[in-house]
Amino acid sequence: MDGQPVTRTEALMDAVRARLASRALAAGDRLPSVRRFAETMRVSPSTVVEAYDRLAAEGLIHARRGSGFYVTGSHMPPMALGEMGERRDRDIDPLWVSRESLDADPSALKPGCGWLPADWMPQAPMRRALRALARVEDNILSDYGSTRGSAALRRLLLARFAEQGIEADPGQLMLTGSGTQAIDLICRFLLRPGDTVLVDDPCYFNFQALLRAHQARIVGISYTPTGPDVTAFEAAAAAERPRLYITNSALHNPTGATLSPQTAHRLLTVAAAHDVTVVEDDIFADFEPAPSPRLAALDGLSRVVRIGSFSKTLSAAMRCGYIAARADWIEGLVDLQVATSFGGPSPIATEMIAHVLAGGGYRKHMDELRRRLTHARGEAAARLALLGITPWIDPRGGFYLWCRLPDGHESAIVARRAMAEGVVLAPGNVFSPSGSAGGFMRFNVTQMDDPRIDDVLRRAIDGA
Amino acid sequence: MDGQPVTRTEALMDAVRARLASRALAAGDRLPSVRRFAETMRVSPSTVVEAYDRLAAEGLIHARRGSGFYVTGSHMPPMALGEMGERRDRDIDPLWVSRESLDADPSALKPGCGWLPADWMPQAPMRRALRALARVEDNILSDYGSTRGSAALRRLLLARFAEQGIEADPGQLMLTGSGTQAIDLICRFLLRPGDTVLVDDPCYFNFQALLRAHQARIVGISYTPTGPDVTAFEAAAAAERPRLYITNSALHNPTGATLSPQTAHRLLTVAAAHDVTVVEDDIFADFEPAPSPRLAALDGLSRVVRIGSFSKTLSAAMRCGYIAARADWIEGLVDLQVATSFGGPSPIATEMIAHVLAGGGYRKHMDELRRRLTHARGEAAARLALLGITPWIDPRGGFYLWCRLPDGHESAIVARRAMAEGVVLAPGNVFSPSGSAGGFMRFNVTQMDDPRIDDVLRRAIDGA
Repeated sequence: MDGQPVTRTEALMDAVRARLASRALAAGDRLPSVRRFAETMRVSPSTVVEAYDRLAAEGLIHARRGSGFYVTGSHMPPMALGEMGERRDRDIDPLWVSRESLDADPSALKPGCGWLPADWMPQAPMRRALRALARVEDNILSDYGSTRGSAALRRLLLARFAEQGIEADPGQLMLTGSGTQAIDLICRFLLRPGDTVLVDDPCYFNFQALLRAHQARIVGISYTPTGPDVTAFEAAAAAERPRLYITNSALHNPTGATLSPQTAHRLLTVAAAHDVTVVEDDIFADFEPAPSPRLAALDGLSRVVRIGSFSKTLSAAMRCGYIAARADWIEGLVDLQVATSFGGPSPIATEMIAHVLAGGGYRKHMDELRRRLTHARGEAAARLALLGITPWIDPRGGFYLWCRLPDGHESAIVARRAMAEGVVLAPGNVFSPSGSAGGFMRFNVTQMDDPRIDDVLRRAIDGA
Repeated sequence: MDGQPVTRTEALMDAVRARLASRALAAGDRLPSVRRFAETMRVSPSTVVEAYDRLAAEGLIHARRGSGFYVTGSHMPPMALGEMGERRDRDIDPLWVSRESLDADPSALKPGCGWLPADWMPQAPMRRALRALARVEDNILSDYGSTRGSAALRRLLLARFAEQGIEADPGQLMLTGSGTQAIDLICRFLLRPGDTVLVDDPCYFNFQALLRAHQARIVGISYTPTGPDVTAFEAAAAAERPRLYITNSALHNPTGATLSPQTAHRLLTVAAAHDVTVVEDDIFADFEPAPSPRLAALDGLSRVVRIGSFSKTLSAAMRCGYIAARADWIEGLVDLQVATSFGGPSPIATEMIAHVLAGGGYRKHMDELRRRLTHARGEAAARLALLGITPWIDPRGGFYLWCRLPDGHESAIVARRAMAEGVVLAPGNVFSPSGSAGGFMRFNVTQMDDPRIDDVLRRAIDGA
């Protein structure tokens, strides 16, 4: 049509098909504009127009007048999160590890999962809280609770924030139904479909699944052992005009790395210059051997939103998270939580959490847990070394080891083979927006007691 | 500009301003197209263009190239749910009753709230469940639980569905973080911004707050003592091409009316003809003296999605709801819940609910509760009659009375006056998408024990 060889148009069509296959573009997403895609692919706009028209003729995409081209499948945008087939046959996408570990057979081994075994959790303080609960007033067992959640738990959290150098007043804090739901509410509040969000590459896989549900454009920032690559962050902030950056500062998931003071300061400076709101997911704070820099503390909850939960340290069965942010945002977020969930966490759960946090048993449990984790990380690293699997860094705390597989091994293939033997692994690319972590795997050192894991891993790597 | 008198343009501008003030149009919403608004208002398209241009000059709206005009306030769409000012000064909007009752002072009287007092709830079975919980395995107290929620509770629910004539297999049921969250997930799954949703007029106020958060267009269908006006439903289905209809079939909120078999059958026939998905919120099912028609039972969960929760009958502190629907939708909804909340309800809560439902205490409690409610409805109606307040119908069950105020009294004004005296009321227009229920008020007969309520109501009506 425009004198371009047909092969160039077909190459473009293949590029779009690949994005559909990898779900980088999902049903309902808008394709890049003709001008922009032409620039990116270094072809003429008319070549892009021809490619889009031919994909539209195939029914893969469709034009909307005055608004561009969209991926077909209009009424089911979030279904693109995963495929509809049988679970075992699904692609290894950002939801893969969640599904496989949450719904695993009780006999399955789960070195890929993101939580501690039940017997590593503070069972004794929890049972004491349950017994105390049997004696509370009727209304705690029956009523909805206030829109911001248990006042007792919020007071305890504010006291802990103050210890961490984060000054916040009661109007800056609300409880939510989970840490994930905290980020979800923030996304609903601040994002519109098509907005750009920066995440670390690699990052917690569910950030990607969540952002996909918001039809956000995800841009990964390469992560270093001292935090995100600030030069890359600055370039992306300038070029992509992101609305949000979502990160873990201490004991980053999946790498276990910790933000350095210099990176923290530079990052906030760049975020301010480009008006990027930062969501700091601080779910691993209590695993730290000693406090590390916090964006929320440096910034004073002006541009930074802090979220967290109790699922990793106390109990995932509680379903409780929190948001600390500007008071006017909290006001709007509380309304949004009422509209969409009617309430936040269960008042029964928050009563139990407040009881455990207020008692001395929790701090003692965490002291002991940190010692146990140091030992477990060392032991797991030694066992993995025998298989040629080596940690990217030696984390200062937490329960993850982000490891490189022996040369040439693709972790998605290894994970599929291990799954066939009842072992759930966490292959690198579920964490990587750019798909550049195929040679990595995340291990949870608390879920590796069983010696069968080593055998399955060895066979999966050998391909036997 | 086009020879139209200036007053016509100004009248149009005023019409838009009124929609903004009433939040019928919220920040980020698209205004009607020029052609369509011209037809609706019976003016020329150029008059609409002039009105839009002048509103844009005032900063109230803005144009997006090729896409029309939008309400300004781009990055904060859901904030339009409520205003940002001090709580007491806020407008009486669909979130008003929720906020005022959830965060009420413990001394406040709440005949406007939507739940039973703690001492009307099954405290003894709940405490027994708590004691049983202190003896469960560690993993129930610590782990996330499966993505669809407690298998024991799902089995109990399926057995109850079967009693109600609803055949469903395990793949058609999932647990959610609340009944509201169940509807929210369905809206995220099926709606796009700008889609039209039918609700009853009047309807549960939070349906409107929730749909506003989804930027849905809300169309109210007049409600009759035997269900929605099917003629109006059919006209709206044909004219507005709605994606969803959300309703309560048994003991409708706020009217207490019950769907008749004829209305149910006609409604489903019309919904099928126009491809409307029906969400049947069955939260009041257990309050019925005898079973009434269910859309989910007639339809067999093909076009109808059933949702419910335990907040009204067992405990609002549990935070647990459910969705029963087509198996392929459940599959997608489960993924969406993982992406946006990571899990559904607290496994501790679902363990307690399953324990209570499985025991004999719950049925006994509900039998007794229904007797108590019959008496309370009669007594409340008699007391309200002394104030000239009369029920629209005599409901066959439940705890609501939908009442007409004495002639000429506006319930929002009465509610504001009562609030100043510490009494939370539920004025009619928070339930009415068309704003046509200003002469009505919803009363909760279980929250009217205190004789001060009569005095405050009398003064509020008299304006003294």
